[in-house]
Amino acid sequence: MANFQKLTSRSEDYSKWYNELVVKADLAEQSAVRGCMVIKPYGYAIWETIQHELDRRFKEQGVKNAYFPLLIPKSFLSREAEHVEGFAKECAVVTHHRLMNDPNGKGVVVDPNAKLEEELIIRPTSETIIWSTYKNWISSYRDLPILCNQWCNVMRWEMRTRLFLRTAEFLWQEGHTAHATKEEAEDYARKMLDVYADFVENVMAIPVVKGVKSPNERFAGALNTYCIEAMMQDGKALQAGTSHFLGQNFAKSFDVQFLSKENKYEYVWATSWGVSTRLMGALIMTHSDDNGLVLPPHLAPIQIVLVPIYKTEEQLNAILDRMNPVLDNLKKAGVRIKVDTTDKYTPGYKFADYELKGVPVRLAMGGRDLENGTIEVARRDTLTKETVTLDGIEEKLLSLLEEIQKNCYDKALRYRIANTRECNSYEEFKEEIKKGGFLLCHWDGTPETEERIKEETKATIRCIPLEALPGYKEEPGVCMVTGKPSPRRVVFAIAY
Amino acid sequence: MANFQKLTSRSEDYSKWYNELVVKADLAEQSAVRGCMVIKPYGYAIWETIQHELDRRFKEQGVKNAYFPLLIPKSFLSREAEHVEGFAKECAVVTHHRLMNDPNGKGVVVDPNAKLEEELIIRPTSETIIWSTYKNWISSYRDLPILCNQWCNVMRWEMRTRLFLRTAEFLWQEGHTAHATKEEAEDYARKMLDVYADFVENVMAIPVVKGVKSPNERFAGALNTYCIEAMMQDGKALQAGTSHFLGQNFAKSFDVQFLSKENKYEYVWATSWGVSTRLMGALIMTHSDDNGLVLPPHLAPIQIVLVPIYKTEEQLNAILDRMNPVLDNLKKAGVRIKVDTTDKYTPGYKFADYELKGVPVRLAMGGRDLENGTIEVARRDTLTKETVTLDGIEEKLLSLLEEIQKNCYDKALRYRIANTRECNSYEEFKEEIKKGGFLLCHWDGTPETEERIKEETKATIRCIPLEALPGYKEEPGVCMVTGKPSPRRVVFAIAY
Repeated sequence: MANFQKLTSRSEDYSKWYNELVVKADLAEQSAVRGCMVIKPYGYAIWETIQHELDRRFKEQGVKNAYFPLLIPKSFLSREAEHVEGFAKECAVVTHHRLMNDPNGKGVVVDPNAKLEEELIIRPTSETIIWSTYKNWISSYRDLPILCNQWCNVMRWEMRTRLFLRTAEFLWQEGHTAHATKEEAEDYARKMLDVYADFVENVMAIPVVKGVKSPNERFAGALNTYCIEAMMQDGKALQAGTSHFLGQNFAKSFDVQFLSKENKYEYVWATSWGVSTRLMGALIMTHSDDNGLVLPPHLAPIQIVLVPIYKTEEQLNAILDRMNPVLDNLKKAGVRIKVDTTDKYTPGYKFADYELKGVPVRLAMGGRDLENGTIEVARRDTLTKETVTLDGIEEKLLSLLEEIQKNCYDKALRYRIANTRECNSYEEFKEEIKKGGFLLCHWDGTPETEERIKEETKATIRCIPLEALPGYKEEPGVCMVTGKPSPRRVVFAIAY
Repeated sequence: MANFQKLTSRSEDYSKWYNELVVKADLAEQSAVRGCMVIKPYGYAIWETIQHELDRRFKEQGVKNAYFPLLIPKSFLSREAEHVEGFAKECAVVTHHRLMNDPNGKGVVVDPNAKLEEELIIRPTSETIIWSTYKNWISSYRDLPILCNQWCNVMRWEMRTRLFLRTAEFLWQEGHTAHATKEEAEDYARKMLDVYADFVENVMAIPVVKGVKSPNERFAGALNTYCIEAMMQDGKALQAGTSHFLGQNFAKSFDVQFLSKENKYEYVWATSWGVSTRLMGALIMTHSDDNGLVLPPHLAPIQIVLVPIYKTEEQLNAILDRMNPVLDNLKKAGVRIKVDTTDKYTPGYKFADYELKGVPVRLAMGGRDLENGTIEVARRDTLTKETVTLDGIEEKLLSLLEEIQKNCYDKALRYRIANTRECNSYEEFKEEIKKGGFLLCHWDGTPETEERIKEETKATIRCIPLEALPGYKEEPGVCMVTGKPSPRRVVFAIAY
């Protein structure tokens, strides 16, 4: 159970608040392996809901799950030049396949006779192994499209890691599709971005800006990277998901051609798209407060918890007899409910624990409530509580859950709107960026200008928005740095 | 789509039949990485049903999912002596964390400056990393029991691999529980064996013998290994799942103690239990025939497929108009249905493909059926078909699915019973074992005798059954090899 030493407050040290919260709320912890985390049962239950909701949406788009090998031959990674350039510096490399007893009697050592002919890389992403496989699956237009996804672990040997946000090993899904035409592939990459945005906004209650990455921020090997960007409570941006249009790059690297309806050999067009356990970081940093986690109901492993307050077994049973039919009906309506009858902890301890863990609605019922036909209903998002009559309690609770879901989203959107502004000169920009938030600025479209801004201010272009943000108009202008023409404003921010 | 070159028959070459079937039915294939497979969408869909059904059963037992690191420090593996002895010879070892451009311009090479201080092993199983984590989770009896499971990939560098049956990388679940008492841990290991047996028999339609492993066949580090053993159509045994009582071995290796209710420090008691994608091999080899896969309905990704036979769009629409209400009702009843209206392939091609893929029920409807109010219903398990009236078709199909499920199980059980027999002398045993099947024999309980039998006949003790097999009595006797006393017969077989 949790440790109730007070959390560092967000205003005191946002970063410390985050690190403490992840551990105290039993979401995850550092493991004995550098940069790799243990996802604890409560954190994993949230991830399972994320998986379940996304998987359903993928399948509605015709996607099928499959599984490809963890290990990638080093030579595969090298086939696509930009791709290997992007990942080579953070690869975990398998070089041997056996241990042996140390001849000097010091435990076990790597057996030098078990060296692999070719080193194998733990997948940092699977484009190369998947396109080497697709080569055998595709010969005719009849075999297209292929719409595969895999849920798996990947590894990128990052030097500075933080739980969920940046870990050497992380869990994710990666979709990889193959199409007969450029248009179909581009449409599919866009469609999956919409699937991500729908999920993140409606289930995770996190408002996002849909956009396109500038060339500097593109995925290694992509022609175009679409993304959704969210704003955290410290004003920093967090990339919540990406969908790449890969053109024919990987098809050419792995020689994947198909015979078209017109009987001509053509290279296949590709997309890939992924979200990861990083979404857990976005979830925590968007909604939570100085008392702990705040979970939007659609994603909460426990949506409603009932804590009976009792002295005798008889009292407990009377409370349960009264409440069980109510809870059963809510369960039938799909609500995730827990009744905490354990006597290991006091009600006060339990209240604090469920608050820390972000359970959206906490019900408490004691002897007097039972007499009066009332129950105490506490909301996690507003930290308010009221005693209400049991008449029509089921409908009240169902609509309360939806109200909390909406409130989580609205609050996050208000914060983002309040911290988004236009900025027209580079001098102004350099001051404004220190305050955090999204800055909408004109940019001349060159990597050089973006690079200069990054070096001087640490801000990057989070995306070129697909449409103007609410309350803003899309209009041309001149680059705030070089004065050259700009077709539209782009979103700058300091990013995670 | 599938390749209809005729399958090698089981009688001609069972092993070749299996290998061909796995590939032709689009279940899995070899990847470019030695010993690692690609699980194709159709195979993965079966695995997803396995996962879903097992996961639900685990959660009913109070189990929660979590995630632990892929990589294990070499020193952790060494802490439990038997454990490292069991796994050292098949470990994939990560030694470096970066690639670099070859100074000689030959692509990328491992960066010699990025050597890890301590080598990391890709988990062959996770007892060590999990018990090093549990140490931080457990301090008092209040923290117990811990009932965690993870769904993940593991790696054992096997020299000879076969799709699903023995692959270097495989997918599995591994449950790891921690308990305050020996009794509770032993009970839990037994309970999970029952969960596995229930799932394998009722969902996979594979009869199993529940038993205990002899010391030679125990998991490395366990005090007791419970198992379920199935018989394949070639008379060989396949271990379908194991549940280990680990005693205090791992708690002692990682110093995991708890303060008991009596205020005394005690070492924690452990279990672990797992099933893997090997179950896919058991599924294929138990039910399938020379025409392809046969899937028990409870596990089939598509339970009923409708192939409309039509010449014009109008005919197709008339068939769909008639059948859609029927199919919608079946879907509401939870049946997994596909309607194959693609015009890329002929009906004959589709029939052959669904037969190869083991779809339990195939419906065909053409213009004449529509006029007559009939439909053709083909059963995959018996390869029979009949034209039936559409009156009450929903109920007929629902009960047909259950009949097929039962028939799959019954047929496998009949086969096992027909190939199980007692054997009382070692001379007889040496002859009988060549015919395959389960031989019920008395054994003196010593590793030496078991070892000798294995060397001379390749047969091993699959298990000491928890109760006598149906039709047999549990009674003492004398060892067929040494003549020493034996409390009960054990199951010998040649095993996968």
